[in-house]
Amino acid sequence: MKRYERLAAEIAGYIDSGAMKPGDRLPSVRQICVSRGVSASTVFKAYYLLEARGIIRARERSGYYVTSGPEPRAARGLAVPLPNAVKTGDVGDLPFKVIESSRLRDIVPFGSAFPSPLLFPLARLGRAMVNVSQHVDPWRSVTDMSPGNAELRQHIALRYVADGIHVHPDDLVITNGALDALDLCLQAVTKPGDCVAVESPAFYGALQALKRHGLRAVEVPTHPSEGIDVKALERIVAIHRPTACWIMPNFQNPLGSSMPDAKKQALVALLADKGIPLIEDDVYGELYFGRQRPLPAKAFDRHGLVLHCSSFSKCLAPGYRIGWAAPGRYLQDVIRLKLGSSLGTSVPVQAALAEYLNRSGFDKHLRQLRQTLLANRDTMLAAIARHLPAGTVVLRPEGGYFLWVQLPEGIDAIALHRRALAAGVSIAPGPIFCPHHGFRHCIRLNYGHPWTPRAEAAMETLGQLIAAGLTGDVDHIAA
Amino acid sequence: MKRYERLAAEIAGYIDSGAMKPGDRLPSVRQICVSRGVSASTVFKAYYLLEARGIIRARERSGYYVTSGPEPRAARGLAVPLPNAVKTGDVGDLPFKVIESSRLRDIVPFGSAFPSPLLFPLARLGRAMVNVSQHVDPWRSVTDMSPGNAELRQHIALRYVADGIHVHPDDLVITNGALDALDLCLQAVTKPGDCVAVESPAFYGALQALKRHGLRAVEVPTHPSEGIDVKALERIVAIHRPTACWIMPNFQNPLGSSMPDAKKQALVALLADKGIPLIEDDVYGELYFGRQRPLPAKAFDRHGLVLHCSSFSKCLAPGYRIGWAAPGRYLQDVIRLKLGSSLGTSVPVQAALAEYLNRSGFDKHLRQLRQTLLANRDTMLAAIARHLPAGTVVLRPEGGYFLWVQLPEGIDAIALHRRALAAGVSIAPGPIFCPHHGFRHCIRLNYGHPWTPRAEAAMETLGQLIAAGLTGDVDHIAA
Repeated sequence: MKRYERLAAEIAGYIDSGAMKPGDRLPSVRQICVSRGVSASTVFKAYYLLEARGIIRARERSGYYVTSGPEPRAARGLAVPLPNAVKTGDVGDLPFKVIESSRLRDIVPFGSAFPSPLLFPLARLGRAMVNVSQHVDPWRSVTDMSPGNAELRQHIALRYVADGIHVHPDDLVITNGALDALDLCLQAVTKPGDCVAVESPAFYGALQALKRHGLRAVEVPTHPSEGIDVKALERIVAIHRPTACWIMPNFQNPLGSSMPDAKKQALVALLADKGIPLIEDDVYGELYFGRQRPLPAKAFDRHGLVLHCSSFSKCLAPGYRIGWAAPGRYLQDVIRLKLGSSLGTSVPVQAALAEYLNRSGFDKHLRQLRQTLLANRDTMLAAIARHLPAGTVVLRPEGGYFLWVQLPEGIDAIALHRRALAAGVSIAPGPIFCPHHGFRHCIRLNYGHPWTPRAEAAMETLGQLIAAGLTGDVDHIAA
Repeated sequence: MKRYERLAAEIAGYIDSGAMKPGDRLPSVRQICVSRGVSASTVFKAYYLLEARGIIRARERSGYYVTSGPEPRAARGLAVPLPNAVKTGDVGDLPFKVIESSRLRDIVPFGSAFPSPLLFPLARLGRAMVNVSQHVDPWRSVTDMSPGNAELRQHIALRYVADGIHVHPDDLVITNGALDALDLCLQAVTKPGDCVAVESPAFYGALQALKRHGLRAVEVPTHPSEGIDVKALERIVAIHRPTACWIMPNFQNPLGSSMPDAKKQALVALLADKGIPLIEDDVYGELYFGRQRPLPAKAFDRHGLVLHCSSFSKCLAPGYRIGWAAPGRYLQDVIRLKLGSSLGTSVPVQAALAEYLNRSGFDKHLRQLRQTLLANRDTMLAAIARHLPAGTVVLRPEGGYFLWVQLPEGIDAIALHRRALAAGVSIAPGPIFCPHHGFRHCIRLNYGHPWTPRAEAAMETLGQLIAAGLTGDVDHIAA
């Protein structure tokens, strides 16, 4: 147990014993420093830990006060606040097992990270590919290396401009899907051993990337509907001085949360103030159910510090592996990392997407896709209400295709994953989204596939398994 | 100056002064340890350095002897033996500038890393793409994620089997070109701070990859026709204990050297004995001018320690970005690194290459390609003889499309690169192939483009610039 954890435990014991009552003001950080002979940072971390547990709360310019205990679940939403200790991003084998199960056509894909490939205009894309394959300019293998096909970059930039965001074609680098873009951006702004602030829970791909590059993750409490806690991030920045921050502001995976614009603006301003680059994963941005596309954090970037990444994989062309980065002031670094690691992105595929975007049809496809996903969302929510037991909590996301489901306390998502898979149903267990395997009673469900009698039966099966009260063991997810 | 370098300088001075004569035996390592109070490792490194400079030579089971001075150039070939100090893999901006110049169609591409795109069957490849784009199986976006399209892996494996090398389709991972394969294999077997043995000179992509991943390079003297010096590598392994070795046994870039089979076997046996994985870059293997494809080192791998990488980029489909790895015992690690970093390789492009390989034509194309390159080689060699000054040394490679040209002493390849580029001619200067910018009077020339009057004039220009005696400065390549 670290010093700040010991200090936090002592204070918690003191409050538990009744020596301090709800509403009592805690000693100032300075007082504790003097009385205990510890550093301000230790006190700050201890207080933050207690705050994260809901035992104390900060009031602006006034100090910390004892709360009346952790808030009731409904009020604080689903995000389980976590101690912000720095952890390695190791989440073991489990994410790969979840990906593996996506390949199996006889498994109901609630755990899949991908929407149904049947939702995409593959025939039209195929025709675009046919068109560009009939008259090939041989020199494209050279000219379309990183940063990539100029026409495609222009189409992508135009979509930003249509949303009022200033992105020039020359600000973009085409990548092998968004994962590649994120990976390159991460390499551009960090070095091994650095600390990166991530959401809690986080996209497991982010945790894996941190692990690949020898980085440490520091988790930032994240609200299930409004996204990352910017005030918490500010304290974490002060304590851990992360080198970068990796966030998914729109329809976050796995929560489905979306940051309001004002919060995005505050996030960008905070990080700009500290000179910390923000890696923004916006792959679900086009899958909104509201009236307009939510702005990316990039829209508020005044200093070139937002490395914005997205792709066509979730909204147009799964399997084509075409994504992009708008890396701001890190553009040249990202272009060179891309040249050095794979020269560029497949030339015919870049050309085919540019050709598809040249014709009208993308927006119509997107409208249909959003309608389908919206209908699927409500169908799955209704099925959850029918089959999952009382005590299950789920929020209604405004975009994307994931539901974050908090099961009754004591249910073990890892054990549920194993039993469900044996019964032909995949789910994504909460612990894969967390470096220390938290969120054990949470699961992520995918509503991006057509609702069928098999899906209905699968939900019923999940309900039965949960009702049987799975408590499981943890050994098999050890890293 | 490090301790071993000081010791080497002292001994060299002693020999220079005439106190020791050619044929004299040097004191044993043990004697020097005792007399000078230094470690055996220091003495060993000093002796190795002197040996690399041609001042002393080891006789098996007998010790070190003073030579009659460095051997004449013709006998020792072009590879300048280098001190084996561990360096970071930083080669500055220059490789990127050389890549950039490849994009400019008005520059004569002697410095390009790529053969002419006109040498490839792009129309046939386009037809294969048309065929597979007309009937798309939507589920391929899921099934063809890493390790990749099963049919394509089967075609690749069959080509190995035809050469008597046991590679099963399930041993392969499809990647975004060979660079991606090499990058993933490197990540699979190293961690930041590790040391990797590379050829001297080395493919600059290898040096860049080492730098990206926080690795150190240790250079192994490499013979310009027979490749890496296995005995030198053995000593380097003893001193530096590298975590991996990254080598191009066939038609090495930039030397054009090819290891004889016995040497490949000895290399694989040495590394297996020490448990060191060998990352093999075999992208030029199909571009042989002899009667049959030279074996890859993988052919001698009995322990799954050779991570063999190749691609279609140099022999069939530039710009498609389709390569592969046969990573031996590291297969699962590489698959997972690929899944985590970009999920997989573009699905339609994998399918198009499988379709192309399904039909006959690849071998016919390869035969034509080899004939063209062979003719180009001799044309460029003749042009060099016509235009470059006396004192220029160049070997005749038996495959690939690079000539390694050693210019007269005192010529500065960096300055030549700059002046030549201003005159519309690109070259690849020797220092980009070396972590400490050695090989300053060497250049790599590409004969993979049609010989035209412009090319002839370009060679004449090079000759004039060299005759003008470029000695240049080094500042502008500082990392």
